[in-house]
Amino acid sequence: MTGATLMFGAGDVRIEDVPDARLIEPTDAVIRVTRGCICGSDLWPYASLEPSETGRAMGHEAIGVVDAVGADVRGMKAGDLVVMPFAYSDGTCDFCHQGLHTSCLHGGFFGTGGDVGGAQAEAVRVPQADGTLFVLPVGEEDALMPSLLTLSDVMGTGHHAAVAAKVGPGKAAAVVGDGAVGLCGVIAARRLGAEIILLGRHADRIALAKEFGATDIVSERGDEAAERVRELTDGLGVHSVLECVGLEQSELTAIEIARPGGAVGRVGVPQEETMPASRPAFYNNVTVGGGPAPVRAYIEELLPDILEGRIEPGRVFDRNIGLDEVPNGYRAMADRESIKVMVQP
Amino acid sequence: MTGATLMFGAGDVRIEDVPDARLIEPTDAVIRVTRGCICGSDLWPYASLEPSETGRAMGHEAIGVVDAVGADVRGMKAGDLVVMPFAYSDGTCDFCHQGLHTSCLHGGFFGTGGDVGGAQAEAVRVPQADGTLFVLPVGEEDALMPSLLTLSDVMGTGHHAAVAAKVGPGKAAAVVGDGAVGLCGVIAARRLGAEIILLGRHADRIALAKEFGATDIVSERGDEAAERVRELTDGLGVHSVLECVGLEQSELTAIEIARPGGAVGRVGVPQEETMPASRPAFYNNVTVGGGPAPVRAYIEELLPDILEGRIEPGRVFDRNIGLDEVPNGYRAMADRESIKVMVQP
Repeated sequence: MTGATLMFGAGDVRIEDVPDARLIEPTDAVIRVTRGCICGSDLWPYASLEPSETGRAMGHEAIGVVDAVGADVRGMKAGDLVVMPFAYSDGTCDFCHQGLHTSCLHGGFFGTGGDVGGAQAEAVRVPQADGTLFVLPVGEEDALMPSLLTLSDVMGTGHHAAVAAKVGPGKAAAVVGDGAVGLCGVIAARRLGAEIILLGRHADRIALAKEFGATDIVSERGDEAAERVRELTDGLGVHSVLECVGLEQSELTAIEIARPGGAVGRVGVPQEETMPASRPAFYNNVTVGGGPAPVRAYIEELLPDILEGRIEPGRVFDRNIGLDEVPNGYRAMADRESIKVMVQP
Repeated sequence: MTGATLMFGAGDVRIEDVPDARLIEPTDAVIRVTRGCICGSDLWPYASLEPSETGRAMGHEAIGVVDAVGADVRGMKAGDLVVMPFAYSDGTCDFCHQGLHTSCLHGGFFGTGGDVGGAQAEAVRVPQADGTLFVLPVGEEDALMPSLLTLSDVMGTGHHAAVAAKVGPGKAAAVVGDGAVGLCGVIAARRLGAEIILLGRHADRIALAKEFGATDIVSERGDEAAERVRELTDGLGVHSVLECVGLEQSELTAIEIARPGGAVGRVGVPQEETMPASRPAFYNNVTVGGGPAPVRAYIEELLPDILEGRIEPGRVFDRNIGLDEVPNGYRAMADRESIKVMVQP
C-alpha cells in the first residue's frame, strides 16, 4: 500500500493507504515522489468540494524518481529523476506540437478526480510518460530542488501568464495576485524585460515580489486599485496584465488596468461562468487570453535559468512538511499562513 | 442650412435642416458628403435610443469632397476626394503610431451623439483632418465608389476581426454573422488565406458569402451550430472566429467553436456587460480580442486590392437612396430587407 492524500469534501483532507501505483498502459511510468506540493488551485475544492465516500486523490505537482516504465517508454529508465507537469500529454499530437500540451488529444490532468491519481502521495502513475515527464540533470537531493519543483506548475504558469499577456522588453506589466503563481508571474515578467506593478496585500509576499523584481506595489482594491495603476502609468494603464487569481473582481481589475491595445493573460482558474467588463475590453481593444499553462512546453526554456541561478522561483515555498502533515498544510495555505507548502513524502 | 439625419429616439429617424458644418479648430476640415451609408451598428440605437428633443446626428461612414480646411491642415486641399473613417484620430499619438487609431488620445467617433456631427448628411466637420482623412486617387463618380466607401468602416472592420482572430494561410476560420461586417469578414479571411465557414441564415447573404469565398455554411443556432462546425473540422473547431454580431448567443457560439489555442476576434458591438463562456475560453486557451477597428490603419493595405479589383466589398450595398429616404433605409435594414444601404445626399 501507498500513502496518499485524499480529499473527502471541503476542508476534509486525509492521508490514507491506497493500492500501490502500478503500470497499466505500456506508455505509463510509475514514479516515487521525492517532492510534491500544495497548489493554490487545490484551495478551490478545499473550500467547496461536495462530500464523497471515496475521496479525490489530490496533488498535481511533483519531482520523483522513476520506479518502473511500460514497454513503450523510450525517454527514461528506472532511477531517473524527473519533473512531472500538472497535465499529462502524449507529446506527439497537433496540440502538443504547437506547444499546447494542456489540450493534448490523449492528455489529462493529475489530481482532479479522474482515474489518474494524485501526486501528494508516495508514488503516482504517470500516463504518456514520454510526452509528460522531463528528465532532470541533477540528483534528487540537489539544493535547487524547490525551484525545479516549480517547473511542474507555478513557474510555468507564471510564464504562461506573461506570454499570454504579451510581456516584452520595456513594457509596463501588472501582476494581479500575490500567491505563488503571481510571484512566479513577477519572475517571468521581469525575465522577459518588463517593468512590474504587483497588486497584492500581504506583507511577506510583497517583500518577496520586490526581491523578484516588482518595482511598484498597489494594495488598494477595485476602483481604487485601477486608479492607482493609472497614476503609475501616465493615466494609460499597463501593456500587459497577468491575472493570477480567477475571481470576478480580479478579472475586472485586470481588464480595467490594461491600456488600449493591451493584453490580459489569465492563469487564475475562473470561478464564474461569465467574464466581467466585456465592453471596456472591447472598446479598448484589450485581448484576453491564457488558460491552463502548457508547462511541459516551457521546461526547456526555463530550466537553464534555474540551473544557472538566474531565477529562484523555489523561494515561494515557505514551509516543508512530510506527507502526514499535508492536512495541516492545506489549512495553513487556506489561512494565508503559508505562501506555498512543499511536501516530502 | 444643411440636410442631416437626426435620430430622436428608437425608430424615430428624421431628416432636418441643421446649421452648416464649419471649421472650428485649425486642424478641422469640412467635407461635402458624396456617399454615406447606414451601419448595422446604427440599428442598436434605432432599437433602443431614449427619446430626446434635440436628436442625435447619425452616420459615421463617408466619402466626400473637401470643402474647406483649417489653417493647420497640410495633407489635403479643397476639392480632394477623401474617405472618412468612423473614428477621427490625430495620427501622431502613441496609439495612432501603433496602429490603434480608435484609441487616439485626441480622437473620437462620428455619429455617436457628441459635439461632432454625423455623416448621413450633406456635409460634416472632420476634426484632426490630417490624421483622419485619406485622399483617394480617383474621381468622385468612379465605379469603385461602393467598395471604396467600405474602407470607412465595414471592410476595415471585417479585416480587424480577421487580424484579431489571427487568421492566416491554411487556417480554418468561422465568421459568426452574415451582416455587412460578417460578409466583409469573409472577404478579409479569404484574402489572408483561410478556409471559411459562415454562420448565417439569410439566403441572399449566404449567396454573397459564397461568392466572397465562404466554403461552408452553417445555419443552425446555438449548440447545434457548434456541433455542425465541429463536424466540419474533425471535431476540433476552427483556429479563428470572427464575431460580427455582439449578442450573448453569438459570443457564446464563437468561443465554443474555437479550437484549443484558437482566437476569437470580436467586432460586433457587445450588447451585454459580461462575456459568456469564461471557463471554456480558459480551459481551451482561447484568446478573445478585437474591438472598434482602427480602419484608418488598414486603408493603405486594403486600397490596392480594391483599386485592382481583387476584392469587391462594395457588393454588400444592395440599395442606393437619397438623403430624404434615409428613414426608410433604417427600416429596410432593421427589417432585413436590405443588407446595407448606401446614401447619396
